[in-house]
Amino acid sequence: MDDPVLVEVTRGGRVESSHRGAAVVVDADGGTVFSLGAVDQAVYPRSAVKALQALPLIESGAADRFGLTDPEIAFACASHSGEAAHVAAATSMLGKAGRGVAALECGVHWPLDEVSARALAARGEAPSALHNNCSGKHSGFVCLACGMDLDPAGYIQPGHAAMREVTAALAAMTGERLDESNRATDGCSIPTYAIPLRSLALAFARFGSGGGLAPQRAAAAARLRNAVMAHPFMIGGTGRFGTSVMQALGTRAFVKSGAEGVYVAALPESGLGIAVKCDDGAGRAAEVATAALLARFLPEAAETLARFRRPELRNWNGIAVGALRSAAALEAG
Amino acid sequence: MDDPVLVEVTRGGRVESSHRGAAVVVDADGGTVFSLGAVDQAVYPRSAVKALQALPLIESGAADRFGLTDPEIAFACASHSGEAAHVAAATSMLGKAGRGVAALECGVHWPLDEVSARALAARGEAPSALHNNCSGKHSGFVCLACGMDLDPAGYIQPGHAAMREVTAALAAMTGERLDESNRATDGCSIPTYAIPLRSLALAFARFGSGGGLAPQRAAAAARLRNAVMAHPFMIGGTGRFGTSVMQALGTRAFVKSGAEGVYVAALPESGLGIAVKCDDGAGRAAEVATAALLARFLPEAAETLARFRRPELRNWNGIAVGALRSAAALEAG
Repeated sequence: MDDPVLVEVTRGGRVESSHRGAAVVVDADGGTVFSLGAVDQAVYPRSAVKALQALPLIESGAADRFGLTDPEIAFACASHSGEAAHVAAATSMLGKAGRGVAALECGVHWPLDEVSARALAARGEAPSALHNNCSGKHSGFVCLACGMDLDPAGYIQPGHAAMREVTAALAAMTGERLDESNRATDGCSIPTYAIPLRSLALAFARFGSGGGLAPQRAAAAARLRNAVMAHPFMIGGTGRFGTSVMQALGTRAFVKSGAEGVYVAALPESGLGIAVKCDDGAGRAAEVATAALLARFLPEAAETLARFRRPELRNWNGIAVGALRSAAALEAG
Repeated sequence: MDDPVLVEVTRGGRVESSHRGAAVVVDADGGTVFSLGAVDQAVYPRSAVKALQALPLIESGAADRFGLTDPEIAFACASHSGEAAHVAAATSMLGKAGRGVAALECGVHWPLDEVSARALAARGEAPSALHNNCSGKHSGFVCLACGMDLDPAGYIQPGHAAMREVTAALAAMTGERLDESNRATDGCSIPTYAIPLRSLALAFARFGSGGGLAPQRAAAAARLRNAVMAHPFMIGGTGRFGTSVMQALGTRAFVKSGAEGVYVAALPESGLGIAVKCDDGAGRAAEVATAALLARFLPEAAETLARFRRPELRNWNGIAVGALRSAAALEAG
């Protein structure tokens, strides 16, 4: 990878660190509108494709059968911070499918939100799989399996019938072949597949606009993206980039993070899909690069996005010590 | 910067992320033994030079006047995790100088060690400046100022007489001119100066061996490095890279991290100094690159260092999902 610098970190007027990567914007017909770096290189999207992996939850009828609410449908697409509303949503979704926390196979970690983690500790409690940032997606998988009248046990395995539906939706949306040759294991133990960045952008162009999708799939995509854009707290949490951007932009953008510096976005009005991969895996840089591209393709929101495009760095005494800034190549000409 | 890849992060047999950077090894005469990337580029060393900034604490006689112990002297060089022993050391050092936590000007944050942070929360307490990862260095600055019979207030300012001593020591050790032209503000509010990576390595070659130093400075350097190598928990904490490596290597290496992907090391036996900067600021990569160079120049410790050179990545279910690995150019030929 010999990708260009996407984002610089400055301190005292000098560049302290810099982040290389690739970024691409495509329309729902696959036309490339913007491209920078090795955009045909396969990357693991990780959590960036959770909304695509949630399509079968809608299409199978499971979401309706179990009466999932819009916040719960949004939560199925989440990489959340383990705050109270998130834990409640996971509990509710599992309960609607007649299951409990024991059905979750994502593993356990302390809430990403430090205030919530310390509050949990202050109550003398320990975290459960409900607090895992992927518990929304996993609760959705359990609902999908139960909705298919399957035993959800082992749903994290590539060969489980529910996971096969999830993988098929991801393959169809990206137009890529997904098999053992490009498969790895994600942090929450489900399969993750290496997919060209351009194909990820195409998938989100389709997801955001319905372009190129059969009516049932387009309807499911609309239901998911509208649920997320209406309830952005459910897919992240306090202070999280995707949550904050969607709170600021309303229905103009769907934004989702993946681990290791991946971001995707969909712009329903223009039908564009965006995908970013920071080579070094830095989320801070992927966020700034994504904000720059959102501003470029949503010029009327450029002012609203300013604080995400050039975040200031302050130290422990609140002194401004530096900033992040996107490369000129990402900014509108 | 067009630096080479120093470290790759793999998942499922593919490279998921990669980290570029520069690394250099020099002897105390300034001879370059190893060089990779833009090693003459100036970087902010941040916390990597704390041991050099602690030289005046020894040389001024303040450490002896206040009866600082070896663990406390080590603690003056720390970027610690805010564990109980660290808070106790800061409290003790300040008390010996007749001061308290109010004298610290580093700001407040929760302990880096999550177990300690949650324990603090569980006791219904909030963090103080004692928990700041720089409280050891700052306690040392307060002791230095008091030992010079100065009011420590404002010691974080470049013009304070104590800070001028600190900057003079750093300038002499690196052989660089340090002034407002290369100055920025660190996370703990003291000045940090952009210094060529090669000069940082030279400073630590001198620090580790005494080579090229006047007798009094060589003695102060020996006292500091021996205190750190004898009490490595004091400069980091549970599970921290520098602490763990020094616990494993004993007196064969001094190792210290700086923010934004900087690491330095000194090898007292061979008199070599090592400096690493990961361009993107990633600590995980700087650690692996440093471990690779330590193994290269301490071949008898290569086995001991194996777990630091190729750390395995496990997910929330304990499944091995990938690894970090250093580039071939860093490994011994």
